[in-house]
Amino acid sequence: MIKSYKSEFLGFIASLQEDICSTLEKEDGAAQFLIDEWNREGGGGGSTRILEGGAIFEKAGVNTSAVFGELPASLQKQLKVDQSRFFACGLSLVIHPNNPFIPTVHANYRYFELYDEQEQIVDQWFGGGSDLTPYYLFEEDVLHFHNHLKEACDNHHAGLYEKYKKACDEYFYNAHRNEARGVGGLFFDYLRPTEKFDETFWFQFVVDMGQSFLPSYMPIVARRRLHTFDTQHKQWQEIRRGRYVEFNLIHDKGTLFGLRSKGRIESILMSLPSTVRWTYNHHPEEGSEEEKLIRVLKEPREWA
Amino acid sequence: MIKSYKSEFLGFIASLQEDICSTLEKEDGAAQFLIDEWNREGGGGGSTRILEGGAIFEKAGVNTSAVFGELPASLQKQLKVDQSRFFACGLSLVIHPNNPFIPTVHANYRYFELYDEQEQIVDQWFGGGSDLTPYYLFEEDVLHFHNHLKEACDNHHAGLYEKYKKACDEYFYNAHRNEARGVGGLFFDYLRPTEKFDETFWFQFVVDMGQSFLPSYMPIVARRRLHTFDTQHKQWQEIRRGRYVEFNLIHDKGTLFGLRSKGRIESILMSLPSTVRWTYNHHPEEGSEEEKLIRVLKEPREWA
Repeated sequence: MIKSYKSEFLGFIASLQEDICSTLEKEDGAAQFLIDEWNREGGGGGSTRILEGGAIFEKAGVNTSAVFGELPASLQKQLKVDQSRFFACGLSLVIHPNNPFIPTVHANYRYFELYDEQEQIVDQWFGGGSDLTPYYLFEEDVLHFHNHLKEACDNHHAGLYEKYKKACDEYFYNAHRNEARGVGGLFFDYLRPTEKFDETFWFQFVVDMGQSFLPSYMPIVARRRLHTFDTQHKQWQEIRRGRYVEFNLIHDKGTLFGLRSKGRIESILMSLPSTVRWTYNHHPEEGSEEEKLIRVLKEPREWA
Repeated sequence: MIKSYKSEFLGFIASLQEDICSTLEKEDGAAQFLIDEWNREGGGGGSTRILEGGAIFEKAGVNTSAVFGELPASLQKQLKVDQSRFFACGLSLVIHPNNPFIPTVHANYRYFELYDEQEQIVDQWFGGGSDLTPYYLFEEDVLHFHNHLKEACDNHHAGLYEKYKKACDEYFYNAHRNEARGVGGLFFDYLRPTEKFDETFWFQFVVDMGQSFLPSYMPIVARRRLHTFDTQHKQWQEIRRGRYVEFNLIHDKGTLFGLRSKGRIESILMSLPSTVRWTYNHHPEEGSEEEKLIRVLKEPREWA
């Protein structure tokens, strides 16, 4: 019989949501999270927390959800599974700062169970990750983010960071633009128990990744929050946010999963930034700070 | 042997592009179209014309393209055809005015040919349409747009307007929001020769639809261009533009076709507005002008 991590995972994401929201509110100093609890037709619901128009954060969403019921056929196909009775829960966050010198960040930690007709678990896996999307490249910020994640991964097993860093570069890729969404981080999915790594190993790994989120990101916010910027910097940020929107609406499997599983639209699309801009055929000047970013997005680097 | 409309259609879209661009420039009075000619790897190319930052038009794209070569397997599936050698040409336009009281408009007129191994045409069809996306509802504007299109359709055959008006309501629908993108217009596709309507009939029909575009839209621009607006109106326009982006990136088959057929990204995504906004769970006040629009988008009406 397979042990369920349902209640442990729900406890983990509830407490992580609290930690992250209170830390962000404190850092922001002006705005507070609005809490929206919602129910899903078909089973489950979630707690959406949104902060908009802050002093530091233009828009931040930190959502938890736990949904269950029957998996639509299209999602069985997407997940490559035969069973239709499922439970899924997770925490998903996106932070869009005002200041173009502070990067946008996204993170997600999730757990999935599938059942047979007798309500017995027949399959379970963990997934998640976090990734950074800067508008201007400060190598020390990217190094801090990656090094912190690498250290957290290495505490569990050597080689995990390298594997999930590569998966992140591959996943968060705007194929139609031939460029990465950002400077990466970690992406892992379908972490199922094996002989080498049992379910307890993966559970602890994902919990640890969740707990590594704040220390991987907040020092960057603290370092850049007083950096002055002008309209040009802001416009560049808004153009780059357009690429973020393109990725989320065209390529992101999480968004697609949400839309197909009749998730709550406003909670799914909270990932989209407040103000976005599309300028025809915009290319930064050669040698500019803006172009420096593009070069890294065209050719993902090893950071840690 | 099937007669090709290739050269006639290319002539039609080239002259329509000229007409539309010169009319828009004249109406705008400040900005001019930038012309970008491009070639497609694999065969063909296009002429992209973009006007940005005008006095009246914030962004307007009026593009023509003619592409040919081998159809990728995924597109054969999308088009439900077996042949892989194709030719496609068309004009596509999107106009995003500054003033939130002037509606956004989109139009497209296209022609497609498929060939066998001996380069003989084995299939051909016409497609296209135009549709209006207001931010505020002026019934007289919507009536003008629809009545003008109905009259143009009726000149060819009774019942065509009704059929393509319905198809437009069905196509430009943001299913994930349960609302229409705008107030519709016409949408027609796969117009193939039949016993009743031969290819000459369809060619003349599509040409006439193209020529009906300016008189269906420009009187609305003229009527609303002096309407004063404030920040609130502009923010509402930007929020609604977000829905426009969602439709184009999540649902629009034309955008998908472009991305899959390795079309020119900047020409495909010229349809996206300059400035866009996503505000969490925004709902207009009951009884407001903004809510009046939403009610029409939730329940498409008969206009003509």
